[in-house]
Amino acid sequence: MKYYAGIDIGGTNIKTCIIDEAGQILSEDSIPTGAGRPQETVLKDIISSVRTSISRAGVSPVAAGMGTPGLIDSEAGVVIYNNNLGWREFDVAPKMSKALNIPVTLENDADAAALGEVVAGCAKGARSAMIITLGTGVGSGYVVEGKIVRGCEFGHMVISYGGRECTCGRKGCFEAYCSATGLINMTREMIASNPNGITAGIAEREGTVSGHTVFDGAENGDADAVNLIDEYTSYLACGLANLANGLQPEVIGIGGGIGKQGERLLAPLRKKVNDEIYKGMTPPRIVSCTLGYKAGLIGAGMAAK
Amino acid sequence: MKYYAGIDIGGTNIKTCIIDEAGQILSEDSIPTGAGRPQETVLKDIISSVRTSISRAGVSPVAAGMGTPGLIDSEAGVVIYNNNLGWREFDVAPKMSKALNIPVTLENDADAAALGEVVAGCAKGARSAMIITLGTGVGSGYVVEGKIVRGCEFGHMVISYGGRECTCGRKGCFEAYCSATGLINMTREMIASNPNGITAGIAEREGTVSGHTVFDGAENGDADAVNLIDEYTSYLACGLANLANGLQPEVIGIGGGIGKQGERLLAPLRKKVNDEIYKGMTPPRIVSCTLGYKAGLIGAGMAAK
Repeated sequence: MKYYAGIDIGGTNIKTCIIDEAGQILSEDSIPTGAGRPQETVLKDIISSVRTSISRAGVSPVAAGMGTPGLIDSEAGVVIYNNNLGWREFDVAPKMSKALNIPVTLENDADAAALGEVVAGCAKGARSAMIITLGTGVGSGYVVEGKIVRGCEFGHMVISYGGRECTCGRKGCFEAYCSATGLINMTREMIASNPNGITAGIAEREGTVSGHTVFDGAENGDADAVNLIDEYTSYLACGLANLANGLQPEVIGIGGGIGKQGERLLAPLRKKVNDEIYKGMTPPRIVSCTLGYKAGLIGAGMAAK
Repeated sequence: MKYYAGIDIGGTNIKTCIIDEAGQILSEDSIPTGAGRPQETVLKDIISSVRTSISRAGVSPVAAGMGTPGLIDSEAGVVIYNNNLGWREFDVAPKMSKALNIPVTLENDADAAALGEVVAGCAKGARSAMIITLGTGVGSGYVVEGKIVRGCEFGHMVISYGGRECTCGRKGCFEAYCSATGLINMTREMIASNPNGITAGIAEREGTVSGHTVFDGAENGDADAVNLIDEYTSYLACGLANLANGLQPEVIGIGGGIGKQGERLLAPLRKKVNDEIYKGMTPPRIVSCTLGYKAGLIGAGMAAK
């Protein structure tokens, strides 16, 4: 049995683990990122956390894989630009490889998480899977025959020409409608137009509007909330049908906060996607992601395999 | 030097060729498809045409590749459904393989054409290329590191939610706006609203509206035509920017009738795509396809390599 180290670099925490070649986690460690510190200082902490995971697992990894947000050069193992961490032109993989004396690979964190879900999560065993993360933004990762298809990033695919403004400068992006942020914006607009409604009451009691507020409103009988979920799932189905038609993944896994809504999201979504894709095509299996933060850790490690 | 047979199955003609391992055509043959005849009869003609190409080239291919429209199972070499040819569940590749006594592969014709452009045409030497064919529909083929990424088909990606009706049953597809058919429809609407305009006059003299009518109108000073080209290239740029953001191809090649418009299409298109893609990203190189019908022939043969 061979073992691999997985490293997931987040804006708040950095997690490390040791996995076996089947993607099973043997040990884990987590440290605060301390974003903004000199990149070499953060690197020292990461190496130390990998060593902690190694000593907890009691086995030596033959390679390590790292997942990180931002603009990266996977071939060179260099983080070109990461705004949250403040990293610039950082050859993190070669430096870590030298320190640990094993090969170290670098992947985009959404790509790593997608691989994790294919190895051990919602898309286990699928020939091809697209993992869509509905959080602050819309992330995507695509895995075919066990390999990450690098650079698949469909959050900024325009689905509504001239539509809602997106943070990227385009109008009508998938992300502008379907991210948790997009849904929260639409929920706020709904509450503003009906401040005495059931959903407005829920938001007031909870002191905030979140991704699940409108789902709770609908479950409590708010007709406006039911309509908004219908609208939201229609936009989401539009984007997913684009990807189903375009790339024909066997599985589409929905992650992030919105993915946790389970069947109250997935049931209408499946129906709408199936109505929109090519006639005669086998519909993708649409499921919720199951691994949470572990997807990125497992996938980073498996990418080094 | 090894040689390969390339076969391109069209609704009107079937073309065959012999290429060398660099994708150079040594000989060609063309026969009428005779669509609607029994599929086994058409197969005999194809085999006979391949033999003609072989005897013209004076060399024996080690394998053959076929490109065909319709729904196919590449792994099995079976055409599942082809409406124009009237083929159903036709195991054409295994049968041809038996007759020619060499391996025979089967690809989608747009995929084969994309590979041809990468081997010997507009995207020669590119690490990754997306070939978009603007004809009756919008076809797409994607090649990464010399290999076809099967099933990439973005004509029915919705870019305008709830927009123009598409033949596929969705609304607002890339194809509904950006195919030659889409442009012709928009040109007809423009002419109907200004029947005494310059473009209307051109259409009247030519007796028809085609993909180049509005470009000719614009060149002759029709302000409405200039506006329509601006609108058309904005939709086209929207779809291409989706693909540039989503898959990051090094080259985007534009083929089909509209691709022949050259710089009067490409110059505004490049500017708009560059304005829409992620800031900091290397823009795709947007070019016209150069091989015409030969792309599908060369690509089919090279897919067998």
